[in-house]
Amino acid sequence: MRLQLEFKGVPDMKVILVIGDGISDRPTRVLNGKTPLQVAETPSMDTVARRGICGVMDPISPGIPPGSDMAHLALLGYDPIQTYTGRGAFEALGVGLEVRESDVSFRCNFATVNEDLHIMDRRAGRIRGSGEELAKALNGIKLERFPEVNVIVKHSVEHRLALILRGPHLSRMVSDSDPSEENLPIQTVKALDTSSEASRTACIVNEVSKQFHEILTNHPISVERRANGLPPANAVLFRGAGTLPQVKPVTERYGIQALIVAAGAMYRGVCKSVGFDVIDVPGATGTVETDTVAKAKAAVENLPGYDYILIHVKGADNASHDGNAEQKVRMIEKIDALIKHLLDNVDLESVFIALTADHTTSLDLRKHVGDPVPLAIMGPGVRADSVEKYSEIDCAQGGLGRIRGVDLTPILMDLAGNSKTFGA
Amino acid sequence: MRLQLEFKGVPDMKVILVIGDGISDRPTRVLNGKTPLQVAETPSMDTVARRGICGVMDPISPGIPPGSDMAHLALLGYDPIQTYTGRGAFEALGVGLEVRESDVSFRCNFATVNEDLHIMDRRAGRIRGSGEELAKALNGIKLERFPEVNVIVKHSVEHRLALILRGPHLSRMVSDSDPSEENLPIQTVKALDTSSEASRTACIVNEVSKQFHEILTNHPISVERRANGLPPANAVLFRGAGTLPQVKPVTERYGIQALIVAAGAMYRGVCKSVGFDVIDVPGATGTVETDTVAKAKAAVENLPGYDYILIHVKGADNASHDGNAEQKVRMIEKIDALIKHLLDNVDLESVFIALTADHTTSLDLRKHVGDPVPLAIMGPGVRADSVEKYSEIDCAQGGLGRIRGVDLTPILMDLAGNSKTFGA
Repeated sequence: MRLQLEFKGVPDMKVILVIGDGISDRPTRVLNGKTPLQVAETPSMDTVARRGICGVMDPISPGIPPGSDMAHLALLGYDPIQTYTGRGAFEALGVGLEVRESDVSFRCNFATVNEDLHIMDRRAGRIRGSGEELAKALNGIKLERFPEVNVIVKHSVEHRLALILRGPHLSRMVSDSDPSEENLPIQTVKALDTSSEASRTACIVNEVSKQFHEILTNHPISVERRANGLPPANAVLFRGAGTLPQVKPVTERYGIQALIVAAGAMYRGVCKSVGFDVIDVPGATGTVETDTVAKAKAAVENLPGYDYILIHVKGADNASHDGNAEQKVRMIEKIDALIKHLLDNVDLESVFIALTADHTTSLDLRKHVGDPVPLAIMGPGVRADSVEKYSEIDCAQGGLGRIRGVDLTPILMDLAGNSKTFGA
Repeated sequence: MRLQLEFKGVPDMKVILVIGDGISDRPTRVLNGKTPLQVAETPSMDTVARRGICGVMDPISPGIPPGSDMAHLALLGYDPIQTYTGRGAFEALGVGLEVRESDVSFRCNFATVNEDLHIMDRRAGRIRGSGEELAKALNGIKLERFPEVNVIVKHSVEHRLALILRGPHLSRMVSDSDPSEENLPIQTVKALDTSSEASRTACIVNEVSKQFHEILTNHPISVERRANGLPPANAVLFRGAGTLPQVKPVTERYGIQALIVAAGAMYRGVCKSVGFDVIDVPGATGTVETDTVAKAKAAVENLPGYDYILIHVKGADNASHDGNAEQKVRMIEKIDALIKHLLDNVDLESVFIALTADHTTSLDLRKHVGDPVPLAIMGPGVRADSVEKYSEIDCAQGGLGRIRGVDLTPILMDLAGNSKTFGA
């Protein structure tokens, strides 16, 4: 049984946690045996490392590559193994839908299928501009066999959408219809356990999928795209069935007011699911084009109203998945500019700045790997060590040693004066 | 609940794990305040440290001296606390017996007892040469009160043998008959829990022990040894009652083909119990005389057919238990020659070499102690650190920090491209 931590509930100081999604890497030949963090010009990150205490952190446990949702739950202090209930609810929350305890939510894609329901394009040519209208055509459809189930659909960005099934006797234990590869047929969704709820939910999803295909095939946007030689969005792929995690929100657990500054729906959703407020920042796009300094400015502006602000920056992970070293280095340098704005604009006597990644993403392998991520924490009273540079290799020499993701927020709460003695 | 890790099941690269049994030590006056690893000339081990990432590892947990069986289970990624079901089954598997799920196995010694069943020599003068014939005289005996129980005996080396009880309603929860000291009587085996199976099994072992004493006392080899003034092998001591651990084998858990190169029965048995193949290497003896380079050659020759090869070398542990510093240093240098053969003969672009120990064995105390063991991992993409030498002290400065034994194989699997993202 995991220790039930308790917190004082009134932090004396504030914390800004910057998560550079996937900035952590392995040494690569493309960069002459260095990691992108070693190569990038990062004077401000290095300041955090030099004035702070450093270490490496296994988001879940050593050697295990975490998904971003699991990693974020862990970094916020929730044991991801006990807490994780699928990705869908985070996506639905992230696009701004209200999610209830009994809802089963999905992360969906518009896709292009042929007459045999084989997938030609998993993203329907990314259908910029028309996703919202198509999603509206799907929202609220009725199911003849399941009249008590509400189908709630909302567009996210490009080809992405979130879907909620709301009604009695639903289960998240169902498989994906998305085979994750093209030239394969849409998969029939199956129950993943023997409960009647799971087989019922699988039937419902398959029925929804069929109706969506009919609606989308005949939609004027699809007709027009076909006429223009573009792949029509004539199907929806379902994956990541999930429910809300059953946890105490940070407002109760730590007694803090917390804010996330992020563009990506999933990151916003994870944080919302544990009680964070969410704001929109103009220019923050969740891509490599994002305006990182705008995010820093939003954090600084909102600092008076919050105890804990998480700034999430996605671009470096995308660059890693694309195997684009140059872009990854540039993205890290853009995060450095974000850090510079924080260093220049917050009261460093009362604000802790922590810098880390949610996982290591290998440029060479274009995927998440299990190496730990570098971590640096700067602020009043930290045991500054001799690390001079923020990188995977340098931080491993730091005073924090090697910790686990689930320990990060308790450490930050303690530094910020929000801990309670355990025992007497 | 411990994380149910999942693995991709098809590693892209290979792993050779070299375990120098008990090479890890504490600084000792005998070596002017250095450890044997610090004193030994180990250019090849140092190459692994210099080109690799280093750390220290607690086989079980900090301060806990592990037995070799537990340590090996942990190093293969099985939580030893949840998995361990006694040593006996490993011994039985290790000598080449087939072990079934319901079998209860023991590790046994031929011993010399007087007419009061007091132990005069726990090893019967090591009875070189005649153990096999004596074991045959014991194999298959019938028990009048327990006709449904089969007694299977096989000789190992010197005075050692393995024994299996096969039949219904047996339990491993029974005490040892071996008091582990001489001049004490053979102990009556007792049930270690209140189950009827345990008290039944204790009765059976006491009955077997009695019959063995009768058979051995009158055996021509005993008669001859007495005539020649040698201690007769006139009794068998039982210890380490055990059953097979209930775990997924590595073939299922990691999806890998694995091989162990080891002479010691127990090490072969532990690995066999989790799905390793086993080979015999001429010249590999499990003692300080062992031909370490022959082991390296066997590993290199078998590499095409395997994903994971464990090379176990025993001698340094024996030297430590004997308090023989010079021999321990020489044994470490023999392991260095093994490493040299690997470095010279494997494709270092596609093979990871990991070097560690299963536990720390103190020369001064002549026993296992709870200090962590040094670990170095070399291979493509590792975050090489600044450690220049393979030793307990140097590796503690390395980039791996301090990990647990149970995390080693997940880390190696991840490096070899055999991990799966947890979460999305």
